[in-house]
Amino acid sequence: MISGAQLLQRADALAAITETPPALTRSYLTPEHWRAAELVLGWMHAAGMQADLDAVGNVAGRYEGTAPGGPCLLLGSHLDTVRDAGKYDGILGVITAIACVDALNRAGERLPFAIEVIGFGDEEGVRFGGTLIGSRAVAGAFDPALLELRDGKGVTLAEAYRTFGLDPARIGAVAKKPNDVLAYVELHIEQGPRLESEGLPVGVVTAIAGFTRLQIEITGVAGHAGTVPMEGRRDALAAAAECVLTVERRALLPHRGASGLVATVGKIEVAPGAINVIPGAARFSVDMRSADDALREQGIAELSAEFRAIAARRGVALEIRGTQSSPAARCAPWLMERLGAAMKAEGQREFRLMSGAGHDGMAIIRIADIGMLFVRCHRGISHNPAEAITAEDGEIGARVLLRFIRDFRPKAAS
Amino acid sequence: MISGAQLLQRADALAAITETPPALTRSYLTPEHWRAAELVLGWMHAAGMQADLDAVGNVAGRYEGTAPGGPCLLLGSHLDTVRDAGKYDGILGVITAIACVDALNRAGERLPFAIEVIGFGDEEGVRFGGTLIGSRAVAGAFDPALLELRDGKGVTLAEAYRTFGLDPARIGAVAKKPNDVLAYVELHIEQGPRLESEGLPVGVVTAIAGFTRLQIEITGVAGHAGTVPMEGRRDALAAAAECVLTVERRALLPHRGASGLVATVGKIEVAPGAINVIPGAARFSVDMRSADDALREQGIAELSAEFRAIAARRGVALEIRGTQSSPAARCAPWLMERLGAAMKAEGQREFRLMSGAGHDGMAIIRIADIGMLFVRCHRGISHNPAEAITAEDGEIGARVLLRFIRDFRPKAAS
Repeated sequence: MISGAQLLQRADALAAITETPPALTRSYLTPEHWRAAELVLGWMHAAGMQADLDAVGNVAGRYEGTAPGGPCLLLGSHLDTVRDAGKYDGILGVITAIACVDALNRAGERLPFAIEVIGFGDEEGVRFGGTLIGSRAVAGAFDPALLELRDGKGVTLAEAYRTFGLDPARIGAVAKKPNDVLAYVELHIEQGPRLESEGLPVGVVTAIAGFTRLQIEITGVAGHAGTVPMEGRRDALAAAAECVLTVERRALLPHRGASGLVATVGKIEVAPGAINVIPGAARFSVDMRSADDALREQGIAELSAEFRAIAARRGVALEIRGTQSSPAARCAPWLMERLGAAMKAEGQREFRLMSGAGHDGMAIIRIADIGMLFVRCHRGISHNPAEAITAEDGEIGARVLLRFIRDFRPKAAS
Repeated sequence: MISGAQLLQRADALAAITETPPALTRSYLTPEHWRAAELVLGWMHAAGMQADLDAVGNVAGRYEGTAPGGPCLLLGSHLDTVRDAGKYDGILGVITAIACVDALNRAGERLPFAIEVIGFGDEEGVRFGGTLIGSRAVAGAFDPALLELRDGKGVTLAEAYRTFGLDPARIGAVAKKPNDVLAYVELHIEQGPRLESEGLPVGVVTAIAGFTRLQIEITGVAGHAGTVPMEGRRDALAAAAECVLTVERRALLPHRGASGLVATVGKIEVAPGAINVIPGAARFSVDMRSADDALREQGIAELSAEFRAIAARRGVALEIRGTQSSPAARCAPWLMERLGAAMKAEGQREFRLMSGAGHDGMAIIRIADIGMLFVRCHRGISHNPAEAITAEDGEIGARVLLRFIRDFRPKAAS
């Protein structure tokens, strides 16, 4: 009933709408956003949905239930991309949800609840820096301060809305109330290697990891690489190197991997940065994630203490700034169970895994229970043109989602 | 007889001649080089010397001995600077040598040998990348291939000579023969903290360290900081951090510090360099120096083996490229003894130390025995506007150098 090949064709069609051909980049409130929205609205209409852009530029479609005007099962993902992106991150969840509605529509089926599908306009935050703008607005958590954010050319978010034909004053109307939404369920590519290593096409997500991001600055004393004896050095890079290995070691403690804790130093810079000068300053980032907020907070506290001990021992100054953090978003057990049941009904082994990447559910959880379904992706590669899935896996994901939709009943009624 | 205050005034006068006011930058064959040369030539003439620019832009002055036309005691240092330089690196050696000749001249003294003072036009290599161009030419080691070097604006060294009024075809004539030079002796600021920590104004240099420079490239696998489990990572930065600490640890082995071995990682870069991406590539430099060539070669071999072991254990690729190396230049024992004797005669404790920085003696050693006298500098700071000496220390350095000159006799005659 659902064709995996057609899912991939639609992903190709969306990938052709890009700011940076031949590479794929599609950011918020751009002409390419508009063209992608038109294409998706066409698919929604063809699937029997009422559909339009909302006041923040999300594509929103509704397929009525047997009792018109009632609460909805909310499905979706995002339509924006990172720079030099793959074709499936976000997109696949929107396309698959529309394909499921299309299957119901062609079979003439109405369910005892409405289905809404949203293609969020901004999840990645590429253009304005603030992430999840589309889903935050739907969750009633759009902070008007965001309107002052500026893109790389100095255009504010407020100006970009007006250029796009949207009125920033109407964004509040996008917010849904908890009573409007029975549940939010998102299908997404895994963006990691676990399903592939398990040999499974789909998995049930247990939680979207919480994260903490730190910026660390170490100030030592620069000096001539030939004339300053080793014993008198306050080498900022050597101190930073110890910290980098501490981050790795702390995250590798055996019970932590089992709890899905990961920690990464992705950026490092030293000054003055010359072959023959001892680094006087070093700056690096830490990104720590876990489904377990207490474990993450403990991990950050341990790292901070170890960083301070390293700095004290080496006689360098240390500054730790927390730049961002977010608690974990736990998927609702009742939705995990139903997704697992749908998986088994479609002949798949039920497998549960954490999401280390962020998703729109982190915003929507404010107004609804959330669930997520992951689809295997090639070698775990994402945020990269090499991002790939098979038509078979796409079709299995769609079949599981369709089964879940058909069997869905609101929590209170279950 | 020699005024420390006047030495500092002359350093100030030279520091005012800069390409980047108020910061001091004076590079080879620039208008500022010309103006500095004019100033120094004036001082040389006032000190009773015959003086002129030579064919590579060195300022060269001669104070005849009792037997005109005989071999010379060669003194000097360099007149070019690094970017955003201090006032004394190089400059002090030229000014002090001229002050010593001036003292002799005012006293009407002629010695049994000539004194030549050279202010080398290029030691730092800032403009064309090749270092020691001035002293290499004097040592007969100017490689004509250097003429093809280009500066940041694409100007070749050959073109720069012509613009400066010099004929590249005449550079060979600058070379001195071993019989022309009885010895080369250079006074220089220490550029390190050892004299200061010993509480001494001057020291005798035992050797100019040899050095090896490596460029290391590590290739791992980039990935999403949230979705790739710790166990499956091939993090290029974590591998590089281990290497950085290995460099430090190897150089800190106790017997190595005593042998003056130092090793530094001054540059590091990672790609893609984003907070939320595991580094897929890392590149860093190694600079290792020692007065003991065998120890340095052993150190480099050990580092290479350890780097390979780290890479193998972590499953990352490693490439080691040697970018530059130079053997140590040992100061002649007879010159060290005489410099030490002059120091004691001037009421100073004799103290010997290695030079971790490079100096013109590395080139001149090809044609003459070399000796060096270090003057204490504030906190060991050099290649920095904060570079400082006291007038007292400058004067003690000049008195020791003058005593050395007056007591000097050629080696064969000693």
